[in-house]
Amino acid sequence: MTASAARRARLREALEGAGLDALVVSHLPNVRYLTGYVGSNAVAVIGRAVDRVVTDARYTVSAREQVDDEVAVTIGPGDLTGDLAAAVAAIAPSGRVGLEAAHLSMARGAQITARIAELDPGVTVTSAVGLVEGLRLIKDDQEIAAIARAADMVDTALAAVLEAGIVGRSERAVAFALQTRLFEIGAEGPSFEIIVAGGPNGAKPHAVPGPRVIGEGELVVIDLGAIADGYCSDMTRTIPTGPLPARLARAYEVCAQAQAAALAAVRPGIGCAALDGVARELITAAGLGKAFGHGLGHGVGLEIHEAPRVAREGTDTLRPGMVVTIEPGIYLEGLGGVRIEDLVVVTDDGGRVLSHSPKASISSATV
Amino acid sequence: MTASAARRARLREALEGAGLDALVVSHLPNVRYLTGYVGSNAVAVIGRAVDRVVTDARYTVSAREQVDDEVAVTIGPGDLTGDLAAAVAAIAPSGRVGLEAAHLSMARGAQITARIAELDPGVTVTSAVGLVEGLRLIKDDQEIAAIARAADMVDTALAAVLEAGIVGRSERAVAFALQTRLFEIGAEGPSFEIIVAGGPNGAKPHAVPGPRVIGEGELVVIDLGAIADGYCSDMTRTIPTGPLPARLARAYEVCAQAQAAALAAVRPGIGCAALDGVARELITAAGLGKAFGHGLGHGVGLEIHEAPRVAREGTDTLRPGMVVTIEPGIYLEGLGGVRIEDLVVVTDDGGRVLSHSPKASISSATV
Repeated sequence: MTASAARRARLREALEGAGLDALVVSHLPNVRYLTGYVGSNAVAVIGRAVDRVVTDARYTVSAREQVDDEVAVTIGPGDLTGDLAAAVAAIAPSGRVGLEAAHLSMARGAQITARIAELDPGVTVTSAVGLVEGLRLIKDDQEIAAIARAADMVDTALAAVLEAGIVGRSERAVAFALQTRLFEIGAEGPSFEIIVAGGPNGAKPHAVPGPRVIGEGELVVIDLGAIADGYCSDMTRTIPTGPLPARLARAYEVCAQAQAAALAAVRPGIGCAALDGVARELITAAGLGKAFGHGLGHGVGLEIHEAPRVAREGTDTLRPGMVVTIEPGIYLEGLGGVRIEDLVVVTDDGGRVLSHSPKASISSATV
Repeated sequence: MTASAARRARLREALEGAGLDALVVSHLPNVRYLTGYVGSNAVAVIGRAVDRVVTDARYTVSAREQVDDEVAVTIGPGDLTGDLAAAVAAIAPSGRVGLEAAHLSMARGAQITARIAELDPGVTVTSAVGLVEGLRLIKDDQEIAAIARAADMVDTALAAVLEAGIVGRSERAVAFALQTRLFEIGAEGPSFEIIVAGGPNGAKPHAVPGPRVIGEGELVVIDLGAIADGYCSDMTRTIPTGPLPARLARAYEVCAQAQAAALAAVRPGIGCAALDGVARELITAAGLGKAFGHGLGHGVGLEIHEAPRVAREGTDTLRPGMVVTIEPGIYLEGLGGVRIEDLVVVTDDGGRVLSHSPKASISSATV
């Protein structure tokens, strides 16, 4: 059984549990996960008696190459609604069909619902949320291996660029050098727009690398990820470029301690909100709670941000096979920022860190 | 008045026409177009008496820098629903609010609708489609200048890479070289994953560049775009690498003629379906109609694919200020493919082509 066949079998169990005869899978990472399809326009219908991908003529050849043999491929016009509705109606003449309500637009959902009703008024269409994402939460060995490869690429690229030196170069030049390295070592791409943010720009967690030249005695936040075999990695290091103002040095120290404590707390059974709390309480106790304005982390896989959400609002509990980031940050407007992020796979008794780039020691930051 | 203030004024007119007091703008390119916000998580509420962007704490600093002074910025938690609903309820205590149904997921739409009803049962929430896209159809001079810059970048990058020679290099290496050039000359990025597809791979309109080495006597489809100031360009050239098999040479010739005819037909007042027909009839008359499986083109702007749709199903009519691609293709499975694409801005009396890379002459392809 191929990996995606096993995933479809698990989805069928989940569908049965949800009282559904079929699911219209419109979120592309979910389509890829379940069928192998890699492209920009497809919908899958997976159910009791159906395994089908509907895509358009641009993908006639590649879809046939990519998609599991057990999955039928229909080529429709660019707007897939018609063929999709026919596929649904054909398989569930009086059944219940779920739409991926978290990913399907209101307009498209209404269109599909109307078409299905036209073709077969006996079919009930209902909203379904998180069915495939629930499966994707737990990565299999093949997926973890891909994520680990993507994490290794980031380690390699960052080491090369730091080795060449970053002081005196613009943020944009450093980001470009990182990206070029990633491609050179075989990444399919960066998994998001690389962040290089020095000095005051570091106070913007999602800064866009600009013309600012990196100076001495500042913190430089470098956040990057790679894609390998469709899977993402994500890592942040904050580089002190020399002796720091006391407030920045302290922020670095507090962030590093919080990150280490949260990493050490990763294990099956801990709640995502509790894990966020491990880091947040340390940062808050240091009087910097307000400067940590985002969640501790997020799942990583076919998407750079996926379940589980590791934050105060997180409701999941860690289980073996989950892959999450641990990335507390402290942002001091006008002065600078620090974020330290590792990618961790939850194991049977703890966590295995997939990102191996060295971290600046706290003492080196405070020198 | 800034460009985005003028756009918001035009949106207010459109809202009045649609009987709406406010629009919840959730599609990020629309948020950028109307407010200046550039980031990954924001919703704007624009209406009779409101100009507001709701984003999260990662963008506290950058949103304030980017967004028009007249637009208020609220920082909410990562899930913006709560703050958003409050903004809507505050401005339209008994009015009609539109949601961007083409871009808002069913689940999020239901959530927002429920929150608004909780806060203010007097507000009517309704689906709205294409209001901002309708404005974006017609580009202003500043937008056209950005698209032209992005088109120039593609011309420059392609010329450099072709100059270095492509025979004997892998598709992936050529794509990587193109991308590197784009960044070197200041592109914010490629506007989509660059396509380099030689030999039989050219028969896949959206092929992913692979390890296949480009040989002599084949057609190589190179489709790439750049981003400049947030605006996209898009261009395809098909390169004959030497004398071609007769079927391929003929496909090239037919495609080139169809493309030239369609380019010449670009003018205000022509229907998008009729324009598609100009190319399609020529290709069909040559017996290759079935090998042209996609539409003739699409609008380009903040998004690489936007309105109008230039296809058999296209319902728009060209107007001055629209920017569209003209890109017929002929795909012969197992043998190869050809696509020739230019980017054209519709002027008062015709079209101005923004992409200037030379095209292989038909005679050179048939040598």
